[in-house]
Amino acid sequence: MKKLINDPLRVADEEVEGFVKAFPSYVKKLEDVRVVVRKNAPVQGKVGILVGGGSGHEPFWFGYTGEGMYDAVIVGEIFSSPTPDAAYKGTKAIDGGEGVLYLLGNYEGDKMNLGISKERAEAEGIPIEIVNVTDDVASAPPSQAQERRGIAGNLFVIKVAGAKAEQGGILEEVKNAALKANSNTRTMGVALSPCILPATGRPNFTISEDEMEIGMGIHGEPGIERTKVKSADEVAEILTMKVVNDLPFKGNDEVALLLNGLGSTPLQELFILFRKIEEILTSKKIDIHKALIGNYCTSIDMMGCSLSLMRLDDELKELFDAPADTPYFKM
Amino acid sequence: MKKLINDPLRVADEEVEGFVKAFPSYVKKLEDVRVVVRKNAPVQGKVGILVGGGSGHEPFWFGYTGEGMYDAVIVGEIFSSPTPDAAYKGTKAIDGGEGVLYLLGNYEGDKMNLGISKERAEAEGIPIEIVNVTDDVASAPPSQAQERRGIAGNLFVIKVAGAKAEQGGILEEVKNAALKANSNTRTMGVALSPCILPATGRPNFTISEDEMEIGMGIHGEPGIERTKVKSADEVAEILTMKVVNDLPFKGNDEVALLLNGLGSTPLQELFILFRKIEEILTSKKIDIHKALIGNYCTSIDMMGCSLSLMRLDDELKELFDAPADTPYFKM
Repeated sequence: MKKLINDPLRVADEEVEGFVKAFPSYVKKLEDVRVVVRKNAPVQGKVGILVGGGSGHEPFWFGYTGEGMYDAVIVGEIFSSPTPDAAYKGTKAIDGGEGVLYLLGNYEGDKMNLGISKERAEAEGIPIEIVNVTDDVASAPPSQAQERRGIAGNLFVIKVAGAKAEQGGILEEVKNAALKANSNTRTMGVALSPCILPATGRPNFTISEDEMEIGMGIHGEPGIERTKVKSADEVAEILTMKVVNDLPFKGNDEVALLLNGLGSTPLQELFILFRKIEEILTSKKIDIHKALIGNYCTSIDMMGCSLSLMRLDDELKELFDAPADTPYFKM
Repeated sequence: MKKLINDPLRVADEEVEGFVKAFPSYVKKLEDVRVVVRKNAPVQGKVGILVGGGSGHEPFWFGYTGEGMYDAVIVGEIFSSPTPDAAYKGTKAIDGGEGVLYLLGNYEGDKMNLGISKERAEAEGIPIEIVNVTDDVASAPPSQAQERRGIAGNLFVIKVAGAKAEQGGILEEVKNAALKANSNTRTMGVALSPCILPATGRPNFTISEDEMEIGMGIHGEPGIERTKVKSADEVAEILTMKVVNDLPFKGNDEVALLLNGLGSTPLQELFILFRKIEEILTSKKIDIHKALIGNYCTSIDMMGCSLSLMRLDDELKELFDAPADTPYFKM
């Protein structure tokens, strides 16, 4: 294992320290807990938005803290849920009197720990709503869509809910915007390599030198098929068709698109994939309103990518296009 | 080798196709040549800025095409110089009547081919100036600073020159701003792994499983020392001291900082490195005006990073902070 780290057990602590030092005009860290909040938190009169999950997905979670996105991120250890106490303190720190929305990735540990935080906060009179993002089509069939995992499409849900809160929406409206974004978003991923976990120095799964796994989760959860590595055009077609057929997306739909790298896949490969994805969507008369291409939600240094589409109507489009200003996401 | 590509010899062509499809509101591609220009080129009455070099450094070169940065990028094959003909056509496409500045990385092939383009353009009455960026302190001693390679610090020179041109500076002023930025910028890198070249499917150099190379260039050019992999704090100290001592940067200096990933190094490791870099600079009373941390100038999927500092005065600071709006760089 080659990693530029110090203590393998202090990776999450030290990366948050470095991040907060790097972007002091955007964020601050709460004392004693690994919670990053926007600089001007709490914003009075605004619904607070709190996200939380394990680290290892950078710039996902804490890189997007700020205006137009969310107010607090509760940072767990690598691929591990944050603690209830940290979530509670984060909730208190961003409570501007209008309640707080928790946006979670639909992982059991996150739901349990943030559920405890919700109870504590509500007991003190802070209204809390929870939306679980479920964009990963590989993780469960359509009939069990509510059991699906949240992966990179989370960015769309965050963007939409964040804009709604920034515009003065009340808690119910912000929650409904998040639910609407989630129900119109689908993601499909592919992995070519494992990631190396800092604590063990070992890969989180094994895969042959000539294989890839379609539908693998961002923590290495099993996918739906293991095959020989295919060409970029073939992979683009698989990802696009899995996503399009699931919602399904149809002719004359307008979509936001996220082609997300998992860490080690060069940006040049994402552009080559996009070339084909765009061709397929165009042939289906699905119009790409805006494309985001890059390492938005990684799995440390995993090789692979995911494609997310969100179907837009006037409301979702306006919220997606609304301004955002954070260290790693600007609109 | 695992890569999401189609034809290994068409990587540069296909990635540019995909990129231009993804960002049609920012850029367009010239016909017949691999040249990307800003959408509204030529901008009448503005000095044009042209950059060129091999592909494989994404998002570097073409990802930063647009307002406040540059007007044209001439895209070579992977790690290879672009052709004189493409450079000439790019020059013509961005000539707004005020001349064109070429910003190059001080590599022989680029200088030769862009030199031919310069002669052709000048013969047609388009004034051309060339600035070669020389920020890599590992590539030659201070006494031969003009022979140093240009690496990630190029971003600072581009940002400053791009702002000066956007503000209406004449060719001489834009050139002088670039020269000033270059003379105040220093970079030092470290590599932990090679990159895999698409055309051959093989690494561009070999390094042991427990070694790193300090000062390696972004195409795998030899560095100054090969050692065992050190801790993040030790690497941070080496990079910072090499950069600081070279200019030298001194107490009360204000700097722009770029901590650049070479492709496969997770962002979390860059944050851990930054934590120590900031501590060292603070102890020396060197003030970080703004920090950029991420994969800005990669070497395909190389593992490693570089640290660049640019000393700011009022002029450089104002130009560095000026607006920029491109697909992969916004200010």
